[in-house]
Amino acid sequence: MIPDTLSAGQYNTVYNFLSLVIASQLFAALFMLIALPRILPRYRQAITIAIIVCGIAAYHYFRIFDSFKAAFVTDSVGGTGTYTQAVGEGFNEGYRYVDWFLTVPLLLVELIAVLALARSVSRRLMMQLVPAAALMIALGYPGEISGDNGIRAIFGLLSTIPFLFILYVLFVQLGKSLERQPVSVRKTLSRLRFLLLLSWGVYPIAYLLPLLNIAGSDAWVFKQVGYSVADILAKAVYGLIIFYVARRKSFEDDAAFAAIEESKDEAPALR
Amino acid sequence: MIPDTLSAGQYNTVYNFLSLVIASQLFAALFMLIALPRILPRYRQAITIAIIVCGIAAYHYFRIFDSFKAAFVTDSVGGTGTYTQAVGEGFNEGYRYVDWFLTVPLLLVELIAVLALARSVSRRLMMQLVPAAALMIALGYPGEISGDNGIRAIFGLLSTIPFLFILYVLFVQLGKSLERQPVSVRKTLSRLRFLLLLSWGVYPIAYLLPLLNIAGSDAWVFKQVGYSVADILAKAVYGLIIFYVARRKSFEDDAAFAAIEESKDEAPALR
Repeated sequence: MIPDTLSAGQYNTVYNFLSLVIASQLFAALFMLIALPRILPRYRQAITIAIIVCGIAAYHYFRIFDSFKAAFVTDSVGGTGTYTQAVGEGFNEGYRYVDWFLTVPLLLVELIAVLALARSVSRRLMMQLVPAAALMIALGYPGEISGDNGIRAIFGLLSTIPFLFILYVLFVQLGKSLERQPVSVRKTLSRLRFLLLLSWGVYPIAYLLPLLNIAGSDAWVFKQVGYSVADILAKAVYGLIIFYVARRKSFEDDAAFAAIEESKDEAPALR
Repeated sequence: MIPDTLSAGQYNTVYNFLSLVIASQLFAALFMLIALPRILPRYRQAITIAIIVCGIAAYHYFRIFDSFKAAFVTDSVGGTGTYTQAVGEGFNEGYRYVDWFLTVPLLLVELIAVLALARSVSRRLMMQLVPAAALMIALGYPGEISGDNGIRAIFGLLSTIPFLFILYVLFVQLGKSLERQPVSVRKTLSRLRFLLLLSWGVYPIAYLLPLLNIAGSDAWVFKQVGYSVADILAKAVYGLIIFYVARRKSFEDDAAFAAIEESKDEAPALR
């Protein structure tokens, strides 16, 4: 539930963080779109998905931003006083779930696609990860919209099952495939899984706040900021790291491409 | 007819599903637009039509979303109470018919185009399917806007005739052409017809609700959610499956293209 009132400082904090997310997602997407020819065609499908993920997030943050602006009003001059809930308007948290429902499966597709594994291995991993990710989000939603803590706990628990399965696939099954990746990107790819784990960790913490009886405007502001930072890390920063991996792999796959794309000092033999 | 009141939960469900459709259509279109060079030129016409279909759907869902938002108001703080019909505003279901009138014939063109059949066969199929699809939608509309159940039944029946003809063409006539498609996509293409049948099945069910005397806010919310899911399946998911078919066929048609586009493991002979 959203708080009845926010101080001007709280209101501005949420407002500015929401705008930061829009800028991050939109321009991460734009950067990758412009830089798409800077990687080999075989990695462009992965980066196209990264662009789409950031685009979907930008769309939803535009909506969240507008919903937030409409949900609170102040009658002070210059907006320096207290903000109270507006009549006839709610703050729609549903946008976040719609966003995650579309983007979380795609984030995993993005990771598998950049590995450029054999088709059969790639397909098997996606058939495991994509339904699990969609199920994880879909099971969280009934708990999120319920005012009842028991229902919240049950759906939170159900949602944890596909989450643990995803971790198993990423950290156990994927391990073998990572060993076959070029040395220059192996560590980055391995750490990328921890970035996912770290940023995704924010969501269950926010989900648990009502169960822990943590409420009030400070907790709500903290939750909005936490979601914002997590969405920047898990989508924009994550996408840019995937782009970096795709670029490094492009250079290792094709020395002629590297000679054109890299600085002269890097490819002396071909100059 | 739209219900007089909606609960906050019902309002938010419709609201979030409409937004989910916008995001799905918009970003499916954007994905295919960016990924257009990832298939051979001979399949790009089919995917261009898929992009246009999703674009048209996104446009109409923006309209439907705004129409829905304007059609209901609440006087509660935070938008947690009951929503009632706004004075002077209606919810325009007509957008759906305009959308279908444009997109349903194109969905069939998209399917025929990706098959890349001989020009004469292709043209004959389109000359059968396109007028039938346009007729099917046009005949449904007078029944939809009529308050009279008799008129609704008559036009529903008339609209069924071209629908059955389309099924005949897809499942009988097209059967022979499908047998000549590459093995790797034959099953996908065959199943695609069932996706059309399944998702199109939602529309006559929703159409029949008033005839079955099923009314009230729950039925209306169910109808809107049903339309939303059906439109995502029949346009965005359908388009992405057509893209997948086009990509697989591109690889089979041209081994050199596959070697550039696919992972090194898949095309070792060419490296």
